[in-house]
Amino acid sequence: MEQTITVLDKVNSPKDVKSLNIEEMKLLSSEIRELIKKKVNTTGGHFGPNMGMVEATIALHYVFNSPVDKFVFDVSHQCYPHKILTGRKEGFTDSDKYLKYTGYTAPEESEHDLFKIGHTSTSISLAAGLAKGRDVKGGKENVVAIIGDGSLTGGEALEGLNNAAVLGSNIIVIVNDNDMSIAENQGGICKQLTQLRKTHGQAEHNMFKALGFDYYIIEDGHDFESLISTFKKAKDADHPVLVHLCTQKGKGFAEAETDKESYHWILPGALDRKNSESCETYESITADFILDKFSKDKSVVAITPATPGVSGFTKDFRAKLGKNYVDVGIAEEHAVAFASGLAKRGAKPFLSVMSSFIQRTYDQLSQDLALNNNPAVILIHWGGITGMDATHLTKYDIPLISNIPNLVYLSPVNKEEYLAMLDWAAAQNEKSVVIRVPFMDVVSTGEKDTTDYSKLNKYQVVESGSEVAILGLGNFFHLGVKVKDLLKEKLGVRATLINPKFITGVDKELLESLKSSHKLVITLEDGALQGGFGEKISAFYAPSDMKVLNFGADKEFTDRVSVEELYQRYHLTPELIVEDIAKIIR
Amino acid sequence: MEQTITVLDKVNSPKDVKSLNIEEMKLLSSEIRELIKKKVNTTGGHFGPNMGMVEATIALHYVFNSPVDKFVFDVSHQCYPHKILTGRKEGFTDSDKYLKYTGYTAPEESEHDLFKIGHTSTSISLAAGLAKGRDVKGGKENVVAIIGDGSLTGGEALEGLNNAAVLGSNIIVIVNDNDMSIAENQGGICKQLTQLRKTHGQAEHNMFKALGFDYYIIEDGHDFESLISTFKKAKDADHPVLVHLCTQKGKGFAEAETDKESYHWILPGALDRKNSESCETYESITADFILDKFSKDKSVVAITPATPGVSGFTKDFRAKLGKNYVDVGIAEEHAVAFASGLAKRGAKPFLSVMSSFIQRTYDQLSQDLALNNNPAVILIHWGGITGMDATHLTKYDIPLISNIPNLVYLSPVNKEEYLAMLDWAAAQNEKSVVIRVPFMDVVSTGEKDTTDYSKLNKYQVVESGSEVAILGLGNFFHLGVKVKDLLKEKLGVRATLINPKFITGVDKELLESLKSSHKLVITLEDGALQGGFGEKISAFYAPSDMKVLNFGADKEFTDRVSVEELYQRYHLTPELIVEDIAKIIR
Repeated sequence: MEQTITVLDKVNSPKDVKSLNIEEMKLLSSEIRELIKKKVNTTGGHFGPNMGMVEATIALHYVFNSPVDKFVFDVSHQCYPHKILTGRKEGFTDSDKYLKYTGYTAPEESEHDLFKIGHTSTSISLAAGLAKGRDVKGGKENVVAIIGDGSLTGGEALEGLNNAAVLGSNIIVIVNDNDMSIAENQGGICKQLTQLRKTHGQAEHNMFKALGFDYYIIEDGHDFESLISTFKKAKDADHPVLVHLCTQKGKGFAEAETDKESYHWILPGALDRKNSESCETYESITADFILDKFSKDKSVVAITPATPGVSGFTKDFRAKLGKNYVDVGIAEEHAVAFASGLAKRGAKPFLSVMSSFIQRTYDQLSQDLALNNNPAVILIHWGGITGMDATHLTKYDIPLISNIPNLVYLSPVNKEEYLAMLDWAAAQNEKSVVIRVPFMDVVSTGEKDTTDYSKLNKYQVVESGSEVAILGLGNFFHLGVKVKDLLKEKLGVRATLINPKFITGVDKELLESLKSSHKLVITLEDGALQGGFGEKISAFYAPSDMKVLNFGADKEFTDRVSVEELYQRYHLTPELIVEDIAKIIR
Repeated sequence: MEQTITVLDKVNSPKDVKSLNIEEMKLLSSEIRELIKKKVNTTGGHFGPNMGMVEATIALHYVFNSPVDKFVFDVSHQCYPHKILTGRKEGFTDSDKYLKYTGYTAPEESEHDLFKIGHTSTSISLAAGLAKGRDVKGGKENVVAIIGDGSLTGGEALEGLNNAAVLGSNIIVIVNDNDMSIAENQGGICKQLTQLRKTHGQAEHNMFKALGFDYYIIEDGHDFESLISTFKKAKDADHPVLVHLCTQKGKGFAEAETDKESYHWILPGALDRKNSESCETYESITADFILDKFSKDKSVVAITPATPGVSGFTKDFRAKLGKNYVDVGIAEEHAVAFASGLAKRGAKPFLSVMSSFIQRTYDQLSQDLALNNNPAVILIHWGGITGMDATHLTKYDIPLISNIPNLVYLSPVNKEEYLAMLDWAAAQNEKSVVIRVPFMDVVSTGEKDTTDYSKLNKYQVVESGSEVAILGLGNFFHLGVKVKDLLKEKLGVRATLINPKFITGVDKELLESLKSSHKLVITLEDGALQGGFGEKISAFYAPSDMKVLNFGADKEFTDRVSVEELYQRYHLTPELIVEDIAKIIR
């Protein structure tokens, strides 16, 4: 490829953007889009959101004066253009540095980033805090929250809107309306935005004006003249302003413009080839189970808070369920209460939530659901120790969920067990049941699991031994099998292997029975130790002579640290575990 | 008092309400108000909200057909008139039965109650679930959510509104606008409601219509003709309807109509006498501390999510802080993110939240605050084991908060320690600090605490002994002192007494050092054991010979069980603890 001087070559910081003319900005937009395509197609990442925000981000840096003026990017997965313009373009031009920068805003990377943000709907509240801080400190800068229409449906964003509206000073909320969050947008706010778009901002009722915002619309969010003139109007306002910015998600890549959902976040190589091979996954097992139930019971309702993809709720699945499929948008709190209401009315709700996002619903799980013992079924996806960004760790769902009274939190280890647990959860009417969907390749025994799960907190002894007992929870049951084999090989110990199945309770009878022929119990859990499963086993044995070792992750935010490294750090390989056991029993 | 036949005598269930004429309804209203006054003045309870809802509740039962039609009372602390009309008036007429019924809706009491509800902002989502359940089950009933204007600012309620708007079938949201939540209402929604009230529902922009609701206003929510005719219009609608019901909080008791905040919830006898004696409390200590800091630093900001009373944020305090006092309304999620933003901008935020309501903010504490290490100070009030209603238990804040990375959660045991912790938390800029404000009478040593709290997770050995070590956390440090004394007396053991101070970390060095001269460590915490402090001590010692006993509450929803009974149940008296210790060491 021939080396030519590009606009991007001249842009190393926001001040360079300020000297560009419109033609150059257009060229810069194309160049940024090419970078994003190439980089994201190599590493995977958020594609659609970033493609849509290119022109708007250039215009923001042209009009405002970052870092004095403060930008808060909601979710921040649409911040790639911002990163490119704020000294981090090497993370997109140099394939050796593709992984140097996180996919979200990160204050440690740049003074142009204010917060680490990865969960949605937080930007308005954070910005309101910055603005109030400015006011009490005597500052004069602009504070700008940039939030997608999909994120606007989250409770925190709405609380933020309500409060930002009465701040009494400068705050600018830019709503990037691309008519999509991850999947299709839902709800009254989406309809309102559509109405405003259709009427050129002149809809009869404007909820933002009703709340007290000055309202501007940018009908073509890829047109620099509109962007710049509107941002200039909003700049330095002494009161709350909301800018309704209409953009096209995936702009600049035809397939992404059409199939917005598939191109929201993509895997490496996704832009080159389309269909990945399909094989059985715990998500497809989930979807098949729900469809089967639905074929017999029309009160089955599948619910997702805007993440159907991770739940196996494919387009085909949604079509088959019809009105019994509900995407509530990014609104996890509502989703849990909604499921509770459905169960109360005798329907059979299945709510799928990612481990990281169930964090938004502690109070709803406790008050709306568990306290009322309504028999909803909640499925937690992706729970485990991963190498993900610090904002998307999935190791805290056990401490979060398992300490709530009344709830039954189950952790299956294979397909048949998962199906049996689903069956029981769906059939019973006494308990709110949460299942930690295995986060691994499907393991199948080929034998139907006939366990009676109504007998709560009964662990399963898979293999009887002595001296050491291994409690391998969920995903880590399989690690337990390896530990058992290695113990035999290295130390000649024939250990007892136990599948606890229940995260929320201690099988006191079984644990008591281990005392006579065991010296050490080890617990293995694919999650954070603090507040988790293993500590409860330790507490049970604490007044006795039994020794216990808890294996799991530590309470820390890790940021893109590989699973391999984490397993070393936390002693989660069979070898390291057996070494630790040897120190106790030898 | 002469016995006369009253209207109330004739009303034993909702069907009796249907045969009343308007004059009788008016009499019934007066009779219900007298009952509420007398009962609440005897037992304490929610006063203002119930006094305002008398006519509306009668009209609801007149127009709708409960229990076929479903009422969901938000917070449900405005459900007293509903209880009186649905077979439970003995709980108000018979002083022996004043405590028979809970102050909230309770399905176990009556088929007219759908959910146990005590946290705000949940009704719309729960009702949406009921409505969707009805649709998939083929039902035809009305589903009615009755929510106060104050509760409408909570994120879950706004998520609920957004989703209820597109339900596509019958759901009726009644917004009881009394211009007050607990303290004065705040925010854009409040302004919108005021605007709608002023314009007889004809404000230029109507956010409810914007979201897709049919909108009706009842300008005088104490006028039966308006109530009944409007409810009839809403009834059987095949689409989402919002009724804006204007009422007067405290209606029928002059002082409560004027001073709405003081009469929201009252103590026994409050209607007879006004001022309670003032003495030093941990709340007044908090307020004095913040005022003192503010006198030196104008960037100090005190924040409350609509509960200034429990934080010591008196009217005088608020007046002195002026714009540096922010009541964000019922919006705990926003409050945490807002505090994080303030701290990031260099201001010094102090956010006060009740233990029970911090449950709404796990994700914000984790993502908006702790992940970013912004030095906000969060004060948790009323944390401990109480005899409260199941919806307002305050024993879960330790498991909730202490397992979040980066956060420092401190638990002071006396006034001087609390002040030293506040001082440190306010002065440092590295950590997000949470303090569990002691929930007990003030204990003062009279000696300044000079501990350097920047040395994280350093426990304090208050008295050195041997054989048994007592870790008494926060409120329960004082229980630890009693246990120590009784151990000496009963068993002749001179125990070591330790004040852990830090909930979020384990002082490994100190715990290690105890091994040489101690056989048993006991932990005492005023909260739930599961996921809490003691389990971490058990886990630490689990691979060693040290024995551990954890004392605290069990994971269960208790409903108005007295503290005395709970202390017996959980072995939390010095005598029971020493007996348990004796079983291990003797």
